[in-house]
Amino acid sequence: MAFPPPLVSIDDVRAAQKRLLDKRLAIRTPLIKMPANDTGTEIYLKLENLQPTGSFKVRGSCNALSSLTDAQLSKGVCTASAGNFAQGLAWSARELGVPCHVLIPDRTPDIKRQAMTSLGAILHPVSYDTWWTAIEKRQYSPDILPGHFVHPASDSSVIAGNGTIGLEILEDLPNVGAVITPYGGGGLSCGVATVIREFRPDARCYATEIETAAPLRASFDLGRATSFDYLPSFVDGIGGKCVLPEMFDFARDVLDDSIVVSLGDVANAVRFLAERCKIVAEGAGAASLAAALSGQVDSSAGPVACVVSGGNIDTRKLVKILEGEIPE
Amino acid sequence: MAFPPPLVSIDDVRAAQKRLLDKRLAIRTPLIKMPANDTGTEIYLKLENLQPTGSFKVRGSCNALSSLTDAQLSKGVCTASAGNFAQGLAWSARELGVPCHVLIPDRTPDIKRQAMTSLGAILHPVSYDTWWTAIEKRQYSPDILPGHFVHPASDSSVIAGNGTIGLEILEDLPNVGAVITPYGGGGLSCGVATVIREFRPDARCYATEIETAAPLRASFDLGRATSFDYLPSFVDGIGGKCVLPEMFDFARDVLDDSIVVSLGDVANAVRFLAERCKIVAEGAGAASLAAALSGQVDSSAGPVACVVSGGNIDTRKLVKILEGEIPE
Repeated sequence: MAFPPPLVSIDDVRAAQKRLLDKRLAIRTPLIKMPANDTGTEIYLKLENLQPTGSFKVRGSCNALSSLTDAQLSKGVCTASAGNFAQGLAWSARELGVPCHVLIPDRTPDIKRQAMTSLGAILHPVSYDTWWTAIEKRQYSPDILPGHFVHPASDSSVIAGNGTIGLEILEDLPNVGAVITPYGGGGLSCGVATVIREFRPDARCYATEIETAAPLRASFDLGRATSFDYLPSFVDGIGGKCVLPEMFDFARDVLDDSIVVSLGDVANAVRFLAERCKIVAEGAGAASLAAALSGQVDSSAGPVACVVSGGNIDTRKLVKILEGEIPE
Repeated sequence: MAFPPPLVSIDDVRAAQKRLLDKRLAIRTPLIKMPANDTGTEIYLKLENLQPTGSFKVRGSCNALSSLTDAQLSKGVCTASAGNFAQGLAWSARELGVPCHVLIPDRTPDIKRQAMTSLGAILHPVSYDTWWTAIEKRQYSPDILPGHFVHPASDSSVIAGNGTIGLEILEDLPNVGAVITPYGGGGLSCGVATVIREFRPDARCYATEIETAAPLRASFDLGRATSFDYLPSFVDGIGGKCVLPEMFDFARDVLDDSIVVSLGDVANAVRFLAERCKIVAEGAGAASLAAALSGQVDSSAGPVACVVSGGNIDTRKLVKILEGEIPE
């Protein structure tokens, strides 16, 4: 069952920016200049880890919910996600006073369940395959999962909300030469790149993936959406088994490339961000910096902006990284 | 030898704000809302740890240097400090292209020396007593320490630069009900409180100190600047042996109180900031949050703003805190 690719225009992103300002649910994050580094590349960090719930996901979820009519909102909202998106949606739903149901894989760890329930989400554990099918089909039994289904990646209003990051980068750094975003479902990378392409066509738009889970890189090589024999790692915010088919043409249209980085590079980036930039980033959030420092980025058009997408890393894993190790 | 208290007007702070914007050496830091907490107090965090060199000190040093004439700058600048201020001054001096000499206690650890020399500072180690005397006398032999001496705490232009934090807090949170700043030399607390007093007279202005080094609390109790039988701790950004006499009347004039917090409270605040707010704060930077959560703050006039003054904490100490311990 194939879905059409989501359509997102600059007007959609501008409307999202206005909604986010009005609702005051997401913050306008700072873009800070990184201390000088050995590569000589001028690097800026867009600190989405400072958002409520610790990731950029509040932008898309807030825009999606604010785009719905009262009638659509009357039964609440739902999604299938076990990670940052569910937290972002639950946060926005609570602030707007509507219920939020979340379909989760039954092996979701307690700490993630607690993060969601503390924001008022009602959880429905199912098998991984059932959960993944709901994401692919963009729906689930409405008796169990009532309300409007918001897709974590390929929902147009979610992508438009993510695109506001691109507008803010351009406001703060008009001469940006390259933007790097971690690629999970694709909603972040495509949203941001849509904006950069429009207003700064000379700038490069890179996705980044981890060596143990790089289906976009494989799909680019193959010319069609494909799966990847992935290994789970501490970089759990990106890197699934495959590229969502409805996102592939979108991604190919707006992204220049996917830069693949190693687990060690990402761990180094997490440590650098804590020690030198005084922020806590999760693996996916630090992957963009790892990519910027990898020597694979064309920065001839200007400075590089890395989207630090989130900071939801388990404390034990952060400690291991600060001690110079690579956590499991 | 008594020095007159520094004089800082609102016009001075406004001029500093304009200089900082022009020079682009310090950033306008975000004021983020903290996740809900058990006390029910609405708390905001002013993230000065995101500044270049990892602390608010770039504001004061940049304003001080930008206020000098070319003739005054011709021999460079100097200070007596072994911590964040010397880094801030060295950073600003390097950006403006003038030399920076720093008098340091001869027991200053290598890691702090490296931080200063990596920014181009020229270090002059002397005994602790000689170093402290230079701070008290606001000068040192110009043959060894050439250039214009910038006092780390009681220099009017440094305090005016610090005051810009207060202006930004009021811009972002006009109904602020209380502001908490860590008290070291007093330049931060007095600069910020000068601004809050002027525009938001109903708001409370608190300093915060650590139980092992609380000379301001003791001085308030006694009614005059006094010393304290202090113990060194991991909270090394605040807490000296005494209150600088020239700062005491200023502090008494603009501050409501000094809230004393325990080492355990500060360690908890550092961990909370890393785990929930995704930022790295040093002990002094987290002390303001510890004070806000201590039950000693009158927040009847509105939400509480905590100045997270810096993030320069040794990684090993941060790891200990993340593991639930109190580092030495």
